[in-house]
Amino acid sequence: MDQQLIATLRGIVGDAHVLTDGDLSAYEQDWRKRVHGKSLAVVRPASTQEVAAVVKACAQAHTPIIAQGGNTGLSVGSTPDSSGQQVVLSLLRMQALRQLDADNLTVTVEAGMILQTLQDTADKAGFLFPLSLAAEGSCTIGGNLGTNAGGTQVLRYGNARELCLGLEVVTAQGDIWNGLTGLRKDNTGYDLRDLFIGSEGTLGIITAATMKLFPQPAAQLTAFAAVPSMEAAVRLLGLAHQHLAAGLTGFEVMGKFALSLVVKHMPQLRVPFADMAEAPYCVLLENSDSESESHARARFEHLLELAFEDGCVLDAVVAESMAQAHDLWHIRESIPLAQAEEGLNIKHDISVQASRIPAFVEYADAVLLREIPGVRLVNFGHLGDGNLHYNVQVPEGQDGKQFLNEKENLVNTLVYDAVAKFDGSFSAEHGVGALKADKLEHYKSPVALGMMRAIKQALDPQAIMNPGCVLKV
Amino acid sequence: MDQQLIATLRGIVGDAHVLTDGDLSAYEQDWRKRVHGKSLAVVRPASTQEVAAVVKACAQAHTPIIAQGGNTGLSVGSTPDSSGQQVVLSLLRMQALRQLDADNLTVTVEAGMILQTLQDTADKAGFLFPLSLAAEGSCTIGGNLGTNAGGTQVLRYGNARELCLGLEVVTAQGDIWNGLTGLRKDNTGYDLRDLFIGSEGTLGIITAATMKLFPQPAAQLTAFAAVPSMEAAVRLLGLAHQHLAAGLTGFEVMGKFALSLVVKHMPQLRVPFADMAEAPYCVLLENSDSESESHARARFEHLLELAFEDGCVLDAVVAESMAQAHDLWHIRESIPLAQAEEGLNIKHDISVQASRIPAFVEYADAVLLREIPGVRLVNFGHLGDGNLHYNVQVPEGQDGKQFLNEKENLVNTLVYDAVAKFDGSFSAEHGVGALKADKLEHYKSPVALGMMRAIKQALDPQAIMNPGCVLKV
Repeated sequence: MDQQLIATLRGIVGDAHVLTDGDLSAYEQDWRKRVHGKSLAVVRPASTQEVAAVVKACAQAHTPIIAQGGNTGLSVGSTPDSSGQQVVLSLLRMQALRQLDADNLTVTVEAGMILQTLQDTADKAGFLFPLSLAAEGSCTIGGNLGTNAGGTQVLRYGNARELCLGLEVVTAQGDIWNGLTGLRKDNTGYDLRDLFIGSEGTLGIITAATMKLFPQPAAQLTAFAAVPSMEAAVRLLGLAHQHLAAGLTGFEVMGKFALSLVVKHMPQLRVPFADMAEAPYCVLLENSDSESESHARARFEHLLELAFEDGCVLDAVVAESMAQAHDLWHIRESIPLAQAEEGLNIKHDISVQASRIPAFVEYADAVLLREIPGVRLVNFGHLGDGNLHYNVQVPEGQDGKQFLNEKENLVNTLVYDAVAKFDGSFSAEHGVGALKADKLEHYKSPVALGMMRAIKQALDPQAIMNPGCVLKV
Repeated sequence: MDQQLIATLRGIVGDAHVLTDGDLSAYEQDWRKRVHGKSLAVVRPASTQEVAAVVKACAQAHTPIIAQGGNTGLSVGSTPDSSGQQVVLSLLRMQALRQLDADNLTVTVEAGMILQTLQDTADKAGFLFPLSLAAEGSCTIGGNLGTNAGGTQVLRYGNARELCLGLEVVTAQGDIWNGLTGLRKDNTGYDLRDLFIGSEGTLGIITAATMKLFPQPAAQLTAFAAVPSMEAAVRLLGLAHQHLAAGLTGFEVMGKFALSLVVKHMPQLRVPFADMAEAPYCVLLENSDSESESHARARFEHLLELAFEDGCVLDAVVAESMAQAHDLWHIRESIPLAQAEEGLNIKHDISVQASRIPAFVEYADAVLLREIPGVRLVNFGHLGDGNLHYNVQVPEGQDGKQFLNEKENLVNTLVYDAVAKFDGSFSAEHGVGALKADKLEHYKSPVALGMMRAIKQALDPQAIMNPGCVLKV
């Protein structure tokens, strides 16, 4: 029976594109190598019609399908289990640019296009495609939509969801839904698009998408500010919204300990205000200006003047050049690497309303330090979106592996319980996957879970689309 | 049995809030008085708990529920049928402001709050709530979300959908889902919020919402430009996006005949370029500036210089003052009234990709003039969103009522078939309601319809939530 399905799949996509032998670890284990699965086969269709035929064949055989893009997800949402009974459907051969419509400010691409290719395609045509995240060199736009990816430009442009106008999807029955409208207003029935976005391959397979383009800014400058408290950082955010308006495209907060790890492990980077004792946090601001670099600088200077008066900024530098602007971003982006250099750590991707972040951090810090003396808190993230990477570094001098074995679950419970207490989210931008399906069950309300299960049952009654991801089987 | 349900409802909300006698036409007929229904009762709960109890009681009695806000919809989506067997559930007593969170830039309000009240509430707190449409003095935020309302600021701020961060909903089973998160990033499971938004009361009842606030612009200026063609208008849109960026908050196109009706019926209004024969269209642009009125004017002047060079603008005026800016908007807003003064007409609310609007208009104009000689086309709308109110005025000298009786269906078919040919939408911002449920069935793909029916069945298996609206029974 398995062999019969594999033969059918070979008939659909060609022998060369049904992989069953050799090293398939790139498809079968997740990005962070937490899970090592074993698939029945890895199938690489070249067209939407082939995807539909593959799904139809698997549906007939009651064989689960794991849709996969760049396989860079952080929540184990695109790898097979260890049964050897699941088919991995890789979209990586579907990379075509279908249309770039400059007058409509849209671009339609296939799901397997690499995010960076889409950024470059937009750039060459004179536009900005703003989605940007660490994995952009290998993640796909289909995966970005399946997980509703976030990244560094959400503050201004929204998540992947807000950047998408239309989808093409192969349903769990192997039908093709052409919802590639490119319309900015279309109130004709239920919002199927947003249901598939963020559903992590559990309701159907995104095969193409129409995405928004934006005019390129004339200049992007950054500023780096030392602030006296997290409350002050939130006040600075309000001022920045008011005075930079839509020019504010980045607002990142970095705790003192996070910056100290960058200073320690990347001595070649110059970190401003690293020694300023009265500044427990620094903030990186990005201003994308539609006029000029000098206008961007003038706006920043005006904002910072007001912020000094308010007292929410102690000291600040505005990048003198685009190169220096990049250097300041580089500090922020180096924190995860500096953490890795320091040793093992436990990562979180949480969100809380910006207004409640100061109280949340105070509460969570206190709980963690009380329950696990010596833990070191690496707090940084997209404060403008209320999204913190509230990470926990092993106490100095302790064995990392042993600490993780003994304390990882406790740390997660303490952090997620604190998040729940402040009405936040245990997964701001990384999704649920298989990794956090139990967290979903624990923290979501029964009413929400009931509706999600009803929708899953309605659209995928055989439960063959990425089973165990998002909702527990 | 009916009397038993009514007694139960009286027990829940109090005698004074279950209306069964007297003139209930405000609840039982639609805004444009196309449909005159008869309800079993009009129930006016005062809290989410009461809504839940009402829904539970109706569900137990298998009695359909029609959720209603301001009852200002244009697609007959909130009125009962004529059976006398449906309960109208009015949200108008639920108008509370639950929370305004300045640091999080959000406001949480109950569904029955009038849109204008929400605008004013935001304004008083120093913020902008940008949703704005003709009915804002009587429509409710719940209705705006139920229909995913559009309006004049969509170009910059999006539809009601894009302005919403969280919902509280009473399900078809009478359960309360608290999804009022106020989070800008939350990837924990399926997007229930966007499923309820735009579902027109057919899946559940929105009882409260958390909406985004924005900084108030320092100045809002308008410009009025004569353009040589629709192609030129689209080119001007591209330039405006590039040079005003997020400052571009309005881009309205008006055909010559539409403007001539304003000149004819509102002689007190001064319409620029009304006599310019070489300009078949005029464009109204709005620039919302975060700096100052003079900066807004300088940006406009820069843009118009480039547009003159390009040839896409023949002549233009920039408002000299805020008062003049309002006057220019007033011309655009007077078109529907001028149309009514001229006589009966057939209205459409369609969208097509901006890039295809010139070809669409050329095609649709030709088809209509060929099939119905003498029809007069009143073409205007939100070109920035690809949304046209492509209306058809009765031929000069013909009896309006007779023309509508004989030709309305033909006109609609010709327009909607043309829209379908250009991959557009037959309802850009007004929704489907009962009025266009047959259009949905005709123009949507069977795959999309199948998924919508499956979702309806999953969330409302008894089919008691606004039956016949969106999906035909």
